[in-house]
Amino acid sequence: MYFYKEDLINLIVPDKPDPSAAKVLQETLGGRFGEMRTMMQFFFQSSNFRGNQKQYRDLIRGVFLEEISHVELVQTTINQLLNGSGEEAVGAEGSNDAPLEEAIKHANPHHFIMAAQSSLPVDAAGNPWNGNYVYSHGNLISDLLDNLVLESTGVLQKSRIYEMSSNKTFRETLAFLIVRDNAHQNAFAKALETLGVDWGKLFPVPNYDINKYPECRKYVEMGFHNAQFNFRLDETRIGEIFQGTTPSRNGGDLSIIEPPKGYPVPELPVMPNEHSPGLYDLNN
Amino acid sequence: MYFYKEDLINLIVPDKPDPSAAKVLQETLGGRFGEMRTMMQFFFQSSNFRGNQKQYRDLIRGVFLEEISHVELVQTTINQLLNGSGEEAVGAEGSNDAPLEEAIKHANPHHFIMAAQSSLPVDAAGNPWNGNYVYSHGNLISDLLDNLVLESTGVLQKSRIYEMSSNKTFRETLAFLIVRDNAHQNAFAKALETLGVDWGKLFPVPNYDINKYPECRKYVEMGFHNAQFNFRLDETRIGEIFQGTTPSRNGGDLSIIEPPKGYPVPELPVMPNEHSPGLYDLNN
Amino acid sequence: MYFYKEDLINLIVPDKPDPSAAKVLQETLGGRFGEMRTMMQFFFQSSNFRGNQKQYRDLIRGVFLEEISHVELVQTTINQLLNGSGEEAVGAEGSNDAPLEEAIKHANPHHFIMAAQSSLPVDAAGNPWNGNYVYSHGNLISDLLDNLVLESTGVLQKSRIYEMSSNKTFRETLAFLIVRDNAHQNAFAKALETLGVDWGKLFPVPNYDINKYPECRKYVEMGFHNAQFNFRLDETRIGEIFQGTTPSRNGGDLSIIEPPKGYPVPELPVMPNEHSPGLYDLNN
Amino acid sequence: MYFYKEDLINLIVPDKPDPSAAKVLQETLGGRFGEMRTMMQFFFQSSNFRGNQKQYRDLIRGVFLEEISHVELVQTTINQLLNGSGEEAVGAEGSNDAPLEEAIKHANPHHFIMAAQSSLPVDAAGNPWNGNYVYSHGNLISDLLDNLVLESTGVLQKSRIYEMSSNKTFRETLAFLIVRDNAHQNAFAKALETLGVDWGKLFPVPNYDINKYPECRKYVEMGFHNAQFNFRLDETRIGEIFQGTTPSRNGGDLSIIEPPKGYPVPELPVMPNEHSPGLYDLNN
Amino acid sequence: MYFYKEDLINLIVPDKPDPSAAKVLQETLGGRFGEMRTMMQFFFQSSNFRGNQKQYRDLIRGVFLEEISHVELVQTTINQLLNGSGEEAVGAEGSNDAPLEEAIKHANPHHFIMAAQSSLPVDAAGNPWNGNYVYSHGNLISDLLDNLVLESTGVLQKSRIYEMSSNKTFRETLAFLIVRDNAHQNAFAKALETLGVDWGKLFPVPNYDINKYPECRKYVEMGFHNAQFNFRLDETRIGEIFQGTTPSRNGGDLSIIEPPKGYPVPELPVMPNEHSPGLYDLNN
Amino acid sequence: MYFYKEDLINLIVPDKPDPSAAKVLQETLGGRFGEMRTMMQFFFQSSNFRGNQKQYRDLIRGVFLEEISHVELVQTTINQLLNGSGEEAVGAEGSNDAPLEEAIKHANPHHFIMAAQSSLPVDAAGNPWNGNYVYSHGNLISDLLDNLVLESTGVLQKSRIYEMSSNKTFRETLAFLIVRDNAHQNAFAKALETLGVDWGKLFPVPNYDINKYPECRKYVEMGFHNAQFNFRLDETRIGEIFQGTTPSRNGGDLSIIEPPKGYPVPELPVMPNEHSPGLYDLNN
Repeated sequence: MYFYKEDLINLIVPDKPDPSAAKVLQETLGGRFGEMRTMMQFFFQSSNFRGNQKQYRDLIRGVFLEEISHVELVQTTINQLLNGSGEEAVGAEGSNDAPLEEAIKHANPHHFIMAAQSSLPVDAAGNPWNGNYVYSHGNLISDLLDNLVLESTGVLQKSRIYEMSSNKTFRETLAFLIVRDNAHQNAFAKALETLGVDWGKLFPVPNYDINKYPECRKYVEMGFHNAQFNFRLDETRIGEIFQGTTPSRNGGDLSIIEPPKGYPVPELPVMPNEHSPGLYDLNN
Repeated sequence: MYFYKEDLINLIVPDKPDPSAAKVLQETLGGRFGEMRTMMQFFFQSSNFRGNQKQYRDLIRGVFLEEISHVELVQTTINQLLNGSGEEAVGAEGSNDAPLEEAIKHANPHHFIMAAQSSLPVDAAGNPWNGNYVYSHGNLISDLLDNLVLESTGVLQKSRIYEMSSNKTFRETLAFLIVRDNAHQNAFAKALETLGVDWGKLFPVPNYDINKYPECRKYVEMGFHNAQFNFRLDETRIGEIFQGTTPSRNGGDLSIIEPPKGYPVPELPVMPNEHSPGLYDLNN
Repeated sequence: MYFYKEDLINLIVPDKPDPSAAKVLQETLGGRFGEMRTMMQFFFQSSNFRGNQKQYRDLIRGVFLEEISHVELVQTTINQLLNGSGEEAVGAEGSNDAPLEEAIKHANPHHFIMAAQSSLPVDAAGNPWNGNYVYSHGNLISDLLDNLVLESTGVLQKSRIYEMSSNKTFRETLAFLIVRDNAHQNAFAKALETLGVDWGKLFPVPNYDINKYPECRKYVEMGFHNAQFNFRLDETRIGEIFQGTTPSRNGGDLSIIEPPKGYPVPELPVMPNEHSPGLYDLNN
Repeated sequence: MYFYKEDLINLIVPDKPDPSAAKVLQETLGGRFGEMRTMMQFFFQSSNFRGNQKQYRDLIRGVFLEEISHVELVQTTINQLLNGSGEEAVGAEGSNDAPLEEAIKHANPHHFIMAAQSSLPVDAAGNPWNGNYVYSHGNLISDLLDNLVLESTGVLQKSRIYEMSSNKTFRETLAFLIVRDNAHQNAFAKALETLGVDWGKLFPVPNYDINKYPECRKYVEMGFHNAQFNFRLDETRIGEIFQGTTPSRNGGDLSIIEPPKGYPVPELPVMPNEHSPGLYDLNN
Repeated sequence: MYFYKEDLINLIVPDKPDPSAAKVLQETLGGRFGEMRTMMQFFFQSSNFRGNQKQYRDLIRGVFLEEISHVELVQTTINQLLNGSGEEAVGAEGSNDAPLEEAIKHANPHHFIMAAQSSLPVDAAGNPWNGNYVYSHGNLISDLLDNLVLESTGVLQKSRIYEMSSNKTFRETLAFLIVRDNAHQNAFAKALETLGVDWGKLFPVPNYDINKYPECRKYVEMGFHNAQFNFRLDETRIGEIFQGTTPSRNGGDLSIIEPPKGYPVPELPVMPNEHSPGLYDLNN
Repeated sequence: MYFYKEDLINLIVPDKPDPSAAKVLQETLGGRFGEMRTMMQFFFQSSNFRGNQKQYRDLIRGVFLEEISHVELVQTTINQLLNGSGEEAVGAEGSNDAPLEEAIKHANPHHFIMAAQSSLPVDAAGNPWNGNYVYSHGNLISDLLDNLVLESTGVLQKSRIYEMSSNKTFRETLAFLIVRDNAHQNAFAKALETLGVDWGKLFPVPNYDINKYPECRKYVEMGFHNAQFNFRLDETRIGEIFQGTTPSRNGGDLSIIEPPKGYPVPELPVMPNEHSPGLYDLNN
């Protein structure tokens, strides 16, 4: 069973609205290599796990638990980027202006039509998330390799998305996730090491220079690239795998640590021109 | 952030394998009105909520938290129904038999090809789950009405699926979910009552007789149709709405209670003819 | 604007339930070459028509109008095939039987789960109808050729579906539609003749022998393969094209005639085990 | 059977081309809550209706009939917005200009590639319409509640789309449809009133001020928000439900009236640079 | 079996980057009437061909073989249009610029996120290619008519896409393909002539003036509109059909000729800001 | 450019019709891990390759070339399994039998409706192939890892499908492909070895015993699991990578060899009850 404490896993850094950045950040939420896929893929692999080598299931489930918080972090970041991106509503005087005309020019129009300037389960091109993204092969090696590709491609795409806007809200979330994907690459690569593979210096993929992403540095200094947060309220065997030297060329030792202390969920303002939240008696 | 204790929200009752039942039960997992949709819809609505009337957000999020456990319960039920449904693998002697030939006749072949006799993010007709099932309108009334339709249709479909097999594993899970969907209907109907609606005796939909579903009775006797489980580790305002007389013609008072005590997650056996889990050194 | 008279365009011949036939007949409703596509394709082509050669638009729209009735006819036929295909509901005594277990074996389970034993906007394999089936090229020759392929393939597929069940409800509707598709092939082939093509003896496709389909004979004798029904309440120029010798090797002259006299819409019985119609006070 | 008179249900107000407005208006045509869905959803519910309480079927079918005209109205509006939005074709001199380069910048490129500057069965993000949008549950209460959500969300989205352009062609059609969706909300809310619900002052959703939409005012003054047009050529029992006091906080009495008098369908000019209509002998 | 020589079927003419042109050119690659569809449709029709009239199969397969090269040509053209469209990567100094911000404004963001500024199996609106585009009816006339519509619509759409950019890389490839689609129209039209059709002067569709497309002229002068390239390493009977007078109003005689001499495949530069190719030891 | 010789890459072993086997074998053709995906994925990766390390591109392209022949082999195998699976057509006497009624019971009905008892671009559950299966990341390590997962999962699924029928046509093709997927695993694993990875004894995945698949043995004895066929008509650098000791625990040395000698393409009989091929004058 799943329990919740109203805390975000990382801080939302304030900056100005940027609907174009919100549009491309949807890839990280609802894309083929986004957080919804990692969450659902590891969920299915955890529930469908066969056999008594529970340390592998605990590893997969441990990452799954964190991915739920990642989904919430990206949803909240997109909401922050969209907040206030449209002008005021058409006035009671019957004025002829079109407050959203400019906003939608480089935006996903569904951010304004379907959602009230908030996140959607779609990718950067507007395609809805699809169950066929999820692979739960039931063969441990296939599952681990697939997860490794998934995490590697996740960080590869985030390093590309990062270059699409210098908005601080946008980049801080990406930087946190890049470091965490790095840790998750380590998790699955390490699991394959226990089965006999020696990775040489293959990871992390891509072969990026942390200095390129100044927002990443503090997370690396906190050791987040070599740590796995523990969200279990009972025992877990994840430490049997996630321990010892990292499989990454970045070096260091792997360890299980407590989750971050948690950050406040921003209160989203009501948005009358989107009729949101639309509570009946707002005008009464 | 999300925390986990390795407990199922309800018991898995043992019975014989039934791949045809597993196929139709997929509707409850990955269908348009299945648990994956309720989970993701309430997740998006929670994160995208606008304004300071947090009691409504807490209500939606409270149901979301339970739905994660529902997804896990249905995944586990499907796995149980598939376990052992294929005969032994083709022998080393080069025998010519086809152990899965019979099993796939009324089954979803993907249960045996893509997953190793385990659950998939698809519906009863094999269509993958789609992000376009999720509605997060951002208008509170629209969201609540949509959720009410979703929960009503969920229980309507479960009452139809129930008639497709008398397998006990299958029916026990359906019965538990029928009662819980009933409670969730009450939750959203009650929220709309706070906005002025008087439902007459409209709910629950469909208008079923609990005596038709003998497995449901104990859950009704435990009051699960009028209760909301609390999975929050911090404060929640859900009780401001989920209280007082039920909006249902079944009568009774609504209350917030502790989650069920939790039930063990069955260990799924390895399945050599599906190469699952495929741990490299199993044969070494 | 569109007006309605509660009449089916052809008779529903009674026969016993046949959910397997209902499943394959869905191709004729929601398949890539089914009636929903012809209806929507000709609707878009009619509304998007450019230029003043209105006789072509009137031809396309005239066929569109008939296709709405075809959709209704196939929906009603599928409903008739599904009616009564499941046994009685699970009894109040808590009996353990599963009345739909047998019914779903060769059926589309969604016929029983999503709809209450009634038609769905999907094809014979359960794939939902998709807007990408519709082509409205805006180039008259491309549109006419596309429509010709569409009608030819429609009748080709119906001639294959016809061999999948000898149920009379099923075959009568197919036979009527085969003859009407023949007339619509003639319509688009004739329109291309006005642009200079001589078809030789190419049509109709496929090159079938009417004697193979005894149910077709009476419709051919009534001249339905060479006639276009007129559903317009105002003037139409369709007769400028649909006239003279048929482009088909079957011979005869084309003419515009009144629609059939109309046939009663069967009243579908309530279905308590599907909670349909579920009118609140049925049990009160 | 369905009959047609070549009249639009409302006027097309002339204004300049606006391909960006055409792109977002596609949501109203081919989106999840657009007119194609209302049309097909009510069509399936009408044909699949069970039982002898025909007044409910007549209500659903009555709205369906109007929706066919709504689809045609939105198609025609989109065509008007696209007309002339590209410059002249590349000249015979081999000039190097690219007349559509500017036009496609904020447009759906398919409006120019697939259709000849005309409407498509897609939404504002370019996703094709999908059969999985249609719900025909076969349980009357579920169907009515679903239809109520559908109509409420339809008008909610239109009120957001309205703010995306001040083009008069665009806004007039949206205003007419907002008022009509209001009437359809009333229809389904009233039907649920006959089953015992008291809506308080919940409807219409969203809670908009008619003064914000000056184009709406005349339709409200004509009483279109409390009227249902009758497109039946035979008897209908719709008046048994659609009568008496409106369920809306706007007040007034419901009544069945004749359809609007009808408005001319604009003749779309030929478009040589799109090779449309492409009639073979245009150049001969 | 299939053999390869590293040669493009036509020249890539250099010009400046143009990501907006790359976006719309995707229609020609992954759209409903693009080269991936022609390739796969003719592949399935070739393999599924029934009967001993092999000249028709050889014709369909002959066109299929060329389409593989067309796919490669369009992929390469898109890559050329994307090359260098983003600025340099974010510097090691932690500068705040966003080099892709401008590039994605009128681009498909997936060109930069999923692929490293290279081609994707999607259309101009970003929808992934779908197997339901492929028709292999198994009835020769239906297949030939469908192929004729496909080739006609292919060239129709290319003539529209041509007007969206004056980029030379873009237009040269389109011009070559327009002429080749013309030849393929002739191939299928001629095959239908052998079955008795006289096309009058219907083809080619659309009825364009070659002078509008100066890049086309040299290909017409080389006779490419009336020629079929032979990619077979063994005997083929294609010449039994593709011979004699063209069915096109452009006149001339059809003939089978050798493939073009072949053009070099451009070497794509590495793209460090996209981490491409990402060879591990590039930095070592 | 691509050249063709009419030879299959392996033998079609005759056996009786088996439409149920044809249905599940579709996974190998049009599934997420089927031959259409490997073909298209390696095609895009080849064309999109960046940089001058051409030995990697030649490797990917080399596998791509073979995959085209694999697609053709699976299409042909499915056709063979479907041939003759329906009884004779309905007789001219108007007999009432339904020759396809039995055939479709455990079949994909589209095999009989859309195709004339021949292959389709869909998977075992009838879902059409989708462009979102294809990954061309543009980062060499990501691409190679993804390809390794793809080939591993391909053989994993084939080893499961193998157990679904003992039909010899079915199993021979699967056995050949299992061995070839093994060789392709080796190809991508070896490429990653050149970048520093030591695989231990991880491959092949799954960890199967060749004795379980008697049809595989002869291909292993011919060394096909350690060989790469060369389909290039010009030079290739593939041998720089595909050489030396295999990365597989099966041992042996890798080598580039000539393609198989080629096997005849079976002539598919005409199928009058499917109106295939439907050559107009067949009956004249």
